[in-house]
Amino acid sequence: MTITVGALREAAAGERRVAITPEVARKLHGKGVRVLLEHGAGEAAGFPDQSYAEATFADAQQVLAQADLLACVLPPVDAVFEQMREGATVVGQLRPHGAATRIAALGRRKLTAFALELLPRTTRAQAMDVLSSQAAVAGYRAMLIAAEACPKFFPMLTTAAGTIRPSRVLVIGAGVAGLQAIATARRLGAQTEGYDVRPETREQIESLGAKFLDLGVSAAGTGGYARELSVEERAAQQQALADHLKVVDVIVTTAAVPGRPAPKILTAAMVGGMKPGALIVDLAAEGGGNCELTRPGERVEHAGVTILGPLNLPAGAPLHASEMYARNVYNFTELLLRDGAIAPDFSDELVARTCLSHGGEPRFQG
Amino acid sequence: MTITVGALREAAAGERRVAITPEVARKLHGKGVRVLLEHGAGEAAGFPDQSYAEATFADAQQVLAQADLLACVLPPVDAVFEQMREGATVVGQLRPHGAATRIAALGRRKLTAFALELLPRTTRAQAMDVLSSQAAVAGYRAMLIAAEACPKFFPMLTTAAGTIRPSRVLVIGAGVAGLQAIATARRLGAQTEGYDVRPETREQIESLGAKFLDLGVSAAGTGGYARELSVEERAAQQQALADHLKVVDVIVTTAAVPGRPAPKILTAAMVGGMKPGALIVDLAAEGGGNCELTRPGERVEHAGVTILGPLNLPAGAPLHASEMYARNVYNFTELLLRDGAIAPDFSDELVARTCLSHGGEPRFQG
Repeated sequence: MTITVGALREAAAGERRVAITPEVARKLHGKGVRVLLEHGAGEAAGFPDQSYAEATFADAQQVLAQADLLACVLPPVDAVFEQMREGATVVGQLRPHGAATRIAALGRRKLTAFALELLPRTTRAQAMDVLSSQAAVAGYRAMLIAAEACPKFFPMLTTAAGTIRPSRVLVIGAGVAGLQAIATARRLGAQTEGYDVRPETREQIESLGAKFLDLGVSAAGTGGYARELSVEERAAQQQALADHLKVVDVIVTTAAVPGRPAPKILTAAMVGGMKPGALIVDLAAEGGGNCELTRPGERVEHAGVTILGPLNLPAGAPLHASEMYARNVYNFTELLLRDGAIAPDFSDELVARTCLSHGGEPRFQG
Repeated sequence: MTITVGALREAAAGERRVAITPEVARKLHGKGVRVLLEHGAGEAAGFPDQSYAEATFADAQQVLAQADLLACVLPPVDAVFEQMREGATVVGQLRPHGAATRIAALGRRKLTAFALELLPRTTRAQAMDVLSSQAAVAGYRAMLIAAEACPKFFPMLTTAAGTIRPSRVLVIGAGVAGLQAIATARRLGAQTEGYDVRPETREQIESLGAKFLDLGVSAAGTGGYARELSVEERAAQQQALADHLKVVDVIVTTAAVPGRPAPKILTAAMVGGMKPGALIVDLAAEGGGNCELTRPGERVEHAGVTILGPLNLPAGAPLHASEMYARNVYNFTELLLRDGAIAPDFSDELVARTCLSHGGEPRFQG
């Protein structure tokens, strides 16, 4: 029997991505899978229904009634699960932490659900790693937002009326988002620095042509891990950062830890010491922000400094974000398929560790 | 007697630039000129009052009562002129075309006014050329707005989940704004093309690493000027452009002519043929737009294509835009000063051609 993979039009406010793109629909079709999408599912991402040559379109109720596997970008409201066929599978970002109610809703329909945020960060998982692919989009977009909101030019400009000096940009946190933000600032010609508590990021930051900001306090420990700083060392580090911020035009902070509140790195006092006209874009706003003054989704002015806390940055570049996301979903879904049926192999750690609920039995305590 | 150069806080909605920056205040001070600014004049540009070491601050009325020369970014409302001292001078962008009422207001106070938009585009005028300096800011910002609003990445991205192809960007019009837009798109890694009816722009476009879009219709005439196209040639050119637009992700149009309505280059039918998710940023929105569908200051959706018509783009990067503008004003003001007095030399074409009103006598019919 042919299995059906479905996707709805995402319902969250401002969400423009789609979990199945025309490219992935074609690949699923090639595997003998039927693709069933809600009317207009890809429209906001730049994929109108007619761009899906290998998919069938129906209303949401029909998609839910027929899908053996439902792919989603963000978790749907719990009522959606109630409309699914018993024993079906859900794959996507399911925000597993603190999601007891959601897991209970999955249980009522005996659903099996995989939260892709829980993938281990191994080599094999990279092709499915939605956190990485979407963080790349977030880092790129955060820096574009910064460039657009900045009262200065990023690049140096030589004009008949003299030279305009490039902006000084600091990116805090050099994970996927941070590195993409650094790359974007460099492309735009800004004088760019990156900072991370993990000393091994120095090489990655420098390989992008940026400078590693050295605060003179080394947290290098044994085995490549950062060691805990003493209270005095931490105070010295904070002071060194505060002093450095006085010359910076733009900060993009990217120190987000999924499912946990974002670490507070920039204090109100540090912001108060910055130049008038300086700008902070806090990519960690969703988790409360890396800056004490950040208000998620809002623009804050403090002592002449602007702090932006944009939400759901990947949804702002929905076409490419969806392309990467759908490929991640496809690569994970391949793991679940065997002989034309959905048959997850729980001896595979990628399957086992992402499972929220199996046949309705909770598998994750977030 | 010491002369006083003044500037107000700009009053137009959304205007954040200032005509006198701390750098220019210092230079004027060095020439023995007193600088008198309205409280907060530079604040929105990132120059709080305390950043001006060599200026005096007062309220608007005092500035107007004491200024021998008033510098402005945009023309103030006519009532402002009435508060100036008789015979004083005004320098700035004065929107001279169709400004009979403004010229009459200048006359009532016997003011002498210079509209910097009227500078001839000669080598000597370059250092004062506000249209060029502000167009550079506009072109840069238009492309940032495009990158931010684009559903795709501009650069190519190689990820664990496959490659993301770069966006295809077309810039129409290769003047100062267009070339800056091209440079910005190139910096961001987009596949960039430039188009202009003037064949001599090919070299400039190519020197930025972009491709010159050749529509196969040559308008090359004698003496380096473009010749008028025949009706058939123009139709062929339009058709070739429409065909080409089908593969483009982003268009930035920059064909603006100061004081005249912008030429309509993109028809509704051309837009209708573009890809869903495509984006047009119309830098000529202020003059009505280069696209038939543009609504100044608004966002229009048409057949899946988004058309943005942003207004006053230079005000969005007020710090650097003001730095360049103030240098332009300073360089022009130097022309007017002789032995510590304002003594315009009307035998200088830069002075003669920009003069709107001399001692109240109208000098320009716009």
